Amino acid sequence: MTRTAQPGQETGVRERLAMAALELFTSKGYAATSVREIVTAAGVTKPVLYYYFGSKEGVYLELMRAAYGEFDAILDDCRSRRGSVLARLKELCDRIFLLFVRELNVARLMYAIYYGPAQGAPFFDFEAYHLKLHELVRDMVAEGIGTGELREGDAADMGWLLIGALNVVLEEQLCQRQPRIGREGLARVIELAFRGIGQGGIEAEGYG
Amino acid sequence: MTRTAQPGQETGVRERLAMAALELFTSKGYAATSVREIVTAAGVTKPVLYYYFGSKEGVYLELMRAAYGEFDAILDDCRSRRGSVLARLKELCDRIFLLFVRELNVARLMYAIYYGPAQGAPFFDFEAYHLKLHELVRDMVAEGIGTGELREGDAADMGWLLIGALNVVLEEQLCQRQPRIGREGLARVIELAFRGIGQGGIEAEGYG
Repeated sequence: MTRTAQPGQETGVRERLAMAALELFTSKGYAATSVREIVTAAGVTKPVLYYYFGSKEGVYLELMRAAYGEFDAILDDCRSRRGSVLARLKELCDRIFLLFVRELNVARLMYAIYYGPAQGAPFFDFEAYHLKLHELVRDMVAEGIGTGELREGDAADMGWLLIGALNVVLEEQLCQRQPRIGREGLARVIELAFRGIGQGGIEAEGYG
Repeated sequence: MTRTAQPGQETGVRERLAMAALELFTSKGYAATSVREIVTAAGVTKPVLYYYFGSKEGVYLELMRAAYGEFDAILDDCRSRRGSVLARLKELCDRIFLLFVRELNVARLMYAIYYGPAQGAPFFDFEAYHLKLHELVRDMVAEGIGTGELREGDAADMGWLLIGALNVVLEEQLCQRQPRIGREGLARVIELAFRGIGQGGIEAEGYG
């Protein structure tokens, strides 16, 4: 996770506090975690946490901002790329997959807070980022329709299919059993979305 | 939710307890909900809850068993159907969508427990059901490959694409903003997975 670089020990303490909080938030839950537990786990005193983050809420927001900041940078970077829509979509999904796996505990915490009871955690606009991803994918699809790389169709629907493929692979990383699809599987599933699983005659058979 | 039919008032009390517990589990969290709060919300006394469910754990398991029992029955029913794989997959997804929307609070609770901290909730094997869905979809796809309705390919990968399309539509129902895709959108996205979003020449262009 990218954080403001600070010299020597200071970076270590800040990082240790953030990691201790993340571990506790994901294993015990945000609400059930106290500042005392975080500082004990990080081997520091309460004032150190207050100095760096202000509060428990501050640690949580910093964890989310750092991970979603990287997510956002991937979106911005992929928007400016050139090349086929398929190649760019595969790169986008691959980079999001790698970030998700690296920050798996942040992802777990996001799922717990977003889908579960809010637990008193301060508001963080997860949806704004996911909406931005959907808009980027939809815009890439619309561009591909324009150049003839993609079929004519509803770019938003096509975006849902692609994001569904991405999400199912990401979410499997959060499962308790061994994930079976993974990074290479994600690329294959994105290709399948382009190629389609039905025989070419699908429209002639009245499916379209 | 299907429960054992009981005459008159008894059914009402049992149902009221289950609904009160579900409402509290989803809004406050499972761990933070006490038996006292459940019985107060249902307008009964503690022994009534113990009589019907044995414990807080018993209420939770009954909620999950009832909803997943219906899910399981849909899978069994769809496995025995005849017709094109596309038509059967659309029916399967549609029925799961309708169950999910009807039992949205059970779905929320499942997401909170499965992705969040376990909160001391008793083990419920969510993955067994999701695995069964994946196996059914994969078997339907393999059958479609056999009859020539579907392209040659990896049936498991094709299953991921279809389940991704289903999940993204289901999960949007859990979002805080107004869902935009919904039931008709789900049918369109499943059709898109069959047709593919790329132009027919995709393999000739070296994508395959």
